[in-house]
Amino acid sequence: MSHPQPIRTAVRHLSKLPGVGQKTATRLVYWLLRAPDGTIEKLAESLAGLVGNVTECSICCNIGTEEVCSLCKRGCTDEQLLLVIEHPQDVLAFERTGDFAGRYHVLHGAISPLDGITPETLRIRQLLERLRDDTITEVIVATDPDVEGDATALYLSRLLRPIGVKVTRLAHGISVGTEIEYADAVSLSRALQHRTEISP
Amino acid sequence: MSHPQPIRTAVRHLSKLPGVGQKTATRLVYWLLRAPDGTIEKLAESLAGLVGNVTECSICCNIGTEEVCSLCKRGCTDEQLLLVIEHPQDVLAFERTGDFAGRYHVLHGAISPLDGITPETLRIRQLLERLRDDTITEVIVATDPDVEGDATALYLSRLLRPIGVKVTRLAHGISVGTEIEYADAVSLSRALQHRTEISP
Repeated sequence: MSHPQPIRTAVRHLSKLPGVGQKTATRLVYWLLRAPDGTIEKLAESLAGLVGNVTECSICCNIGTEEVCSLCKRGCTDEQLLLVIEHPQDVLAFERTGDFAGRYHVLHGAISPLDGITPETLRIRQLLERLRDDTITEVIVATDPDVEGDATALYLSRLLRPIGVKVTRLAHGISVGTEIEYADAVSLSRALQHRTEISP
Repeated sequence: MSHPQPIRTAVRHLSKLPGVGQKTATRLVYWLLRAPDGTIEKLAESLAGLVGNVTECSICCNIGTEEVCSLCKRGCTDEQLLLVIEHPQDVLAFERTGDFAGRYHVLHGAISPLDGITPETLRIRQLLERLRDDTITEVIVATDPDVEGDATALYLSRLLRPIGVKVTRLAHGISVGTEIEYADAVSLSRALQHRTEISP
């Protein structure tokens, strides 16, 4: 005795999603079966719509719908600055700050040999391509502050410095609004190391 | 600046799922875009496969692939016992105990007027239909031990007692707040043994 075949199949595929286990997938499927007419069809169509309609920008490797994405097409005041990030979602985080007027480059991950992610599987070849014409003078590595992000930053620094490009990294410290009492030790330790003088 | 159109559409539909917010949906979509070839297609197909291929059993209202489900077709030793449950998933929970040899009836919910679930939207008409030929002498109400489940049990007790059917409820071997679907087999088995009659 088990769930009917179509339900088992949907559960199997849903439970491949990160953070979705067998039980959650089963709950979602039964929820879908009770959902208003058209809910399942629209969901299935919208997922199928991701295939073929979404592509990587040929310049920055960000995910979009066109050969060259809107961010690469638009004018920008700091053409010499290139912000290297791990994931397409990170672009939006920087766009929200309204503080960055350079170009982006999406690596699609960070170096993690155990997960099979090596420099060759990241968009580093495309990055080197972009540095050829000497427009870009500084590469800001904005990988996540974890082991993989640190390794990637170090790798890029060693790779790019010899070709005469300045390689910087985002400052680490305590985030704005944090209460010192609850700040994690690593962030606090970094904040201490990279303390800045208070300008009078 | 926002996500590309196909991604926004998929996020919108995914975030309708219970427990899936905007951020989780976005994470899932970007995960899907990086997943091995065919992952998205198979997921979309398996979801689309739920439509039309899944139907309610014409006898017990359980969800299955045939007009009459395998549980209604199989022989059973306690034909006089009918176990009334809220959700199709609950059938599996009872089957796992191996302690029940009667028939099932799936209500597809519990009375909850605030959510628009009234006795008319549940499969109570079909339940009354099954009680017509006097084979069933005892209805065990196995709704969840919460407000809606209690209300449904009381409603069924008042409805069925006048037509000469014994109405019992699962014993409080299951802790209050538990969902039947996730109850462990032993507790559920005890709850079945010590079921009590509902006093009107």
